[in-house]
Amino acid sequence: MDSSGTRALARLLSRVEAGEHVEDTASGVGGADGAPGRARVIGLTGAPGVGKSTMTSALIARYRAAGKRVGVLAIDPSSPFTGGALLGDRIRMQEHATDQGVFIRSMASRGHLGGLAAATPRAVRVLDAAGFDVIIVETVGVGQAEVDIASQADSVIVLLAPGMGDAVQAAKAGILETGDLFVVNKADKPDAQAVVRDLRGMLALGTWDNGWKPRILTAIAQEADGVAEVIEALDAHAEWLTAAGELDRRRLARAEAEILALALGSVRAKVCAADVGSLAAKVAAGTLDPSAAAADLLAAVGFPDG
Amino acid sequence: MDSSGTRALARLLSRVEAGEHVEDTASGVGGADGAPGRARVIGLTGAPGVGKSTMTSALIARYRAAGKRVGVLAIDPSSPFTGGALLGDRIRMQEHATDQGVFIRSMASRGHLGGLAAATPRAVRVLDAAGFDVIIVETVGVGQAEVDIASQADSVIVLLAPGMGDAVQAAKAGILETGDLFVVNKADKPDAQAVVRDLRGMLALGTWDNGWKPRILTAIAQEADGVAEVIEALDAHAEWLTAAGELDRRRLARAEAEILALALGSVRAKVCAADVGSLAAKVAAGTLDPSAAAADLLAAVGFPDG
Repeated sequence: MDSSGTRALARLLSRVEAGEHVEDTASGVGGADGAPGRARVIGLTGAPGVGKSTMTSALIARYRAAGKRVGVLAIDPSSPFTGGALLGDRIRMQEHATDQGVFIRSMASRGHLGGLAAATPRAVRVLDAAGFDVIIVETVGVGQAEVDIASQADSVIVLLAPGMGDAVQAAKAGILETGDLFVVNKADKPDAQAVVRDLRGMLALGTWDNGWKPRILTAIAQEADGVAEVIEALDAHAEWLTAAGELDRRRLARAEAEILALALGSVRAKVCAADVGSLAAKVAAGTLDPSAAAADLLAAVGFPDG
Repeated sequence: MDSSGTRALARLLSRVEAGEHVEDTASGVGGADGAPGRARVIGLTGAPGVGKSTMTSALIARYRAAGKRVGVLAIDPSSPFTGGALLGDRIRMQEHATDQGVFIRSMASRGHLGGLAAATPRAVRVLDAAGFDVIIVETVGVGQAEVDIASQADSVIVLLAPGMGDAVQAAKAGILETGDLFVVNKADKPDAQAVVRDLRGMLALGTWDNGWKPRILTAIAQEADGVAEVIEALDAHAEWLTAAGELDRRRLARAEAEILALALGSVRAKVCAADVGSLAAKVAAGTLDPSAAAADLLAAVGFPDG
């Protein structure tokens, strides 16, 4: 992709981020063969500080060395207050800024139609249509929304690091069941092996009915150590996805989640435009039950049997 | 509250957690004077590992020493896989397990009607009606949903700790704008002062139109160090809330959020029961646009102008 193609793609994704309806075919953004669903979608999630950006950068470098074009969507549940997304963009862009085979984009929409849950799959399809071979969706994986977004990828890497709170807390964050691959980053730090042990113990409790037992790896992303092994495991997972018919299942689930997010987003826009305030005043005063208020609200926007 | 009252309250909250409609008056759970809105609701949020449970425990001890009854709702975005919520309950209960003036409850509902966003305010009102003086809502504060829940409290404490990823990442997590009080825990660790400095720098960028400038404190919750100062700051914030009319505004916002969550939860239940699968198959195959699929879905459940 030349730099004008990059700019066109950036503009297109801005519209997606704003909740606008755009054509998935992404005409004019440098898409090549254009068959949809060609790109591999990798979710990368983990708590703040485990090294997600560093790992993403290391994965990009490896994939680029293999001649693959890489798109990255960094999902920032950021605040308008700090402008986190733009900052994130700048920090992340540095290493690969001049590489036309890499496209990195932070997504930080709040409150718009369907939110990130709707915008992310659309952005993935836009990058897919633009001809990227690998699409990495990076999320801060603690909140349910971010976990859900990550779990919509073809393969999900859960990144952990020693000293970031114990494994019980990781489990509480609900990320354990979403991982196809667990990578303990900063493996040169003390307690890295303890994290691996904890993970093994917890994963041993699971039943892997669908046939893929999550793998546990260690890495030092900062030094690109262990990254080749992560790619190997991703390849093995990709093979299994296809062989087991799981790839289709996941992509169907992704489409389903996107449709639901869009549908609920449009309902949300309608009910928010209705008079919630007067109902809320009654609920706060204790004179109206919240469930009754919700039914009233839905009736007001014409939803049957609110 | 005697132990039969505690059991009745626990049963009631189980029904709230399951999305069931229960009476807020909480009759039979030992409520005393019963005027709604009497309890102070404190939100406590922060990344995994910053010491939220320890701080909650330290706050409970202080409030109990002052003769206050304390209810705690620990919001666990946990997984069915690990049973995190039950485990959390047990870990948290130990210190205050035999104290009838303390009630601690993990909330870990996923996917039910309105989700935690609806269940939490209702649980708060149940505890309020049951006569608790202070209600602490503890959330893992990285995901937007959890931040939203925390921000529905009267006063929000954002807990941070050194060595948990830098302040830029905290900012990205969207928690900065929700805090009334920032407490840097584990203040005896190296870099605690750096976290304070970073916070000061970031908060200096904000404009505090409503008249409360967030305070920054340090603490070592493990040793109850600095906890008295946290309580003092909470008291100062409570005074300001009332004087500025902000308490009513926040409680109105809380009621509004609850009504919206319930309304959207009921729509969600309906659209999920509809045939999303066949629409998703078309979207995944690239033959139907997701926005069109969302409109079809809403039309199928009778929502006007999908």
